Amino acid sequence: MRILVSNDDGIDAEGIGALAEKLREIGEVTVVAPRTEQSAVGHKITMKNPLRVTDYKKNGKFFGYAVDGTPADCVKMGIRNILHKKPDIVVSGINHGSNTAINTIYSGTVSAAREAAIMDVPAIAVSITSHDPAQFDTAAEIVNKLVLLVVKHGLPTGTCLNVNVPDLPREQIKGVLLTKQGTSKWDDIYEERFDPYGKKYFWLTGVLLETDKDLDRDQCAITNNYVSVSPIHFDLTDYETFEKMKSWQIENIG
Amino acid sequence: MRILVSNDDGIDAEGIGALAEKLREIGEVTVVAPRTEQSAVGHKITMKNPLRVTDYKKNGKFFGYAVDGTPADCVKMGIRNILHKKPDIVVSGINHGSNTAINTIYSGTVSAAREAAIMDVPAIAVSITSHDPAQFDTAAEIVNKLVLLVVKHGLPTGTCLNVNVPDLPREQIKGVLLTKQGTSKWDDIYEERFDPYGKKYFWLTGVLLETDKDLDRDQCAITNNYVSVSPIHFDLTDYETFEKMKSWQIENIG
Repeated sequence: MRILVSNDDGIDAEGIGALAEKLREIGEVTVVAPRTEQSAVGHKITMKNPLRVTDYKKNGKFFGYAVDGTPADCVKMGIRNILHKKPDIVVSGINHGSNTAINTIYSGTVSAAREAAIMDVPAIAVSITSHDPAQFDTAAEIVNKLVLLVVKHGLPTGTCLNVNVPDLPREQIKGVLLTKQGTSKWDDIYEERFDPYGKKYFWLTGVLLETDKDLDRDQCAITNNYVSVSPIHFDLTDYETFEKMKSWQIENIG
Repeated sequence: MRILVSNDDGIDAEGIGALAEKLREIGEVTVVAPRTEQSAVGHKITMKNPLRVTDYKKNGKFFGYAVDGTPADCVKMGIRNILHKKPDIVVSGINHGSNTAINTIYSGTVSAAREAAIMDVPAIAVSITSHDPAQFDTAAEIVNKLVLLVVKHGLPTGTCLNVNVPDLPREQIKGVLLTKQGTSKWDDIYEERFDPYGKKYFWLTGVLLETDKDLDRDQCAITNNYVSVSPIHFDLTDYETFEKMKSWQIENIG
């Protein structure tokens, strides 16, 4: 089995090291990841600047290819110009910090998996719920089992899995739940500050308002110490509103 | 009516000028837009760097606020720290180039509208099908009519409209169609080049494979000279796969 690995925390992050090491137990791993941290870049792709690819070593040994672009760039580039063929699966992560609810759309980790899905390659995005994770082993073990399940069952073109794992020792995980993207979102605050020259600037901060109450929602599942597995796709159409809008008679404005 | 206007081509783009001017016929317009071009940035938000906001003049007159961030940053910042309250609607564009099918997820223009929708503000993203548009008047006129329709009917929290207008004089537009996001995607090519110092670099290019055949798909509608109006949301859950995956018994891997 050929596995392409990427992330958004950058090729030097601990999470991608733990992930690649574990996946080597079940397949041939190629790492293509951003040279620098690309958190919250969403599904950004690089069109107006050239990309460069360089070999990256960890502990003096070749680890993978560093691309000075985004996670989605890495997946496109990895499949088109490095592997020169489709891998059996793409795995993105292990992200330092959860990617649930509204964060799913901001996440570079998730976008790497989604880009693979668009290219008709099964994919998994995996995140740990802590920004300073201690339990990479738990997440890596879960991922390996999920990879085998995905390869066995397949996924439709355009669909990938968004997996979030509590930062807990294996025995404290309550179980694995199939979930939907939650609706929890941020109450954003832009903190106003002044630079040493007296000019104002703003830092984005805020709190996630945890509005999800059911265990079949990703955010609620991880809060209750379950692993969350959500199938997501790239079709943004709101079909319910599509039906309702037929009564708007928008053809009349043409 | 209070209208917040943003885009991804940057505050100096012709499209946002045409849009703001036309919208002033029906409401009080505040422009908050990226200082520099932010095409294809997807739903990127700026967390690890501070943001700055400055007044921007066009033809010697105050035009709006320039933010050195992404379209989604501009909407968050515009509502939270500039208007200090929710506008009646957010309009993003007029983008130079269409945002249909797979391009919907890469688009900064669409992400600005989607960010507004997340914040429970009705929103419209509008794009012209040419990268060097000639017919801003057509798009601007359509948008004004759609704004009035959206304000009349409302949109569910989290849903916005993605509108694409052919770059044609008004009388050559065949009509306005309610559409779904198409499935057309790019056949990407990374062109290999060498810099003056002999080092290799890559430029992303490619062709959009127009696989959509029905007029109720955005890409097909614009190809046939119709205005396309798609309701989109931020829930990425693939509900069909969610149901199918119940047979995977993923609880067993816990």
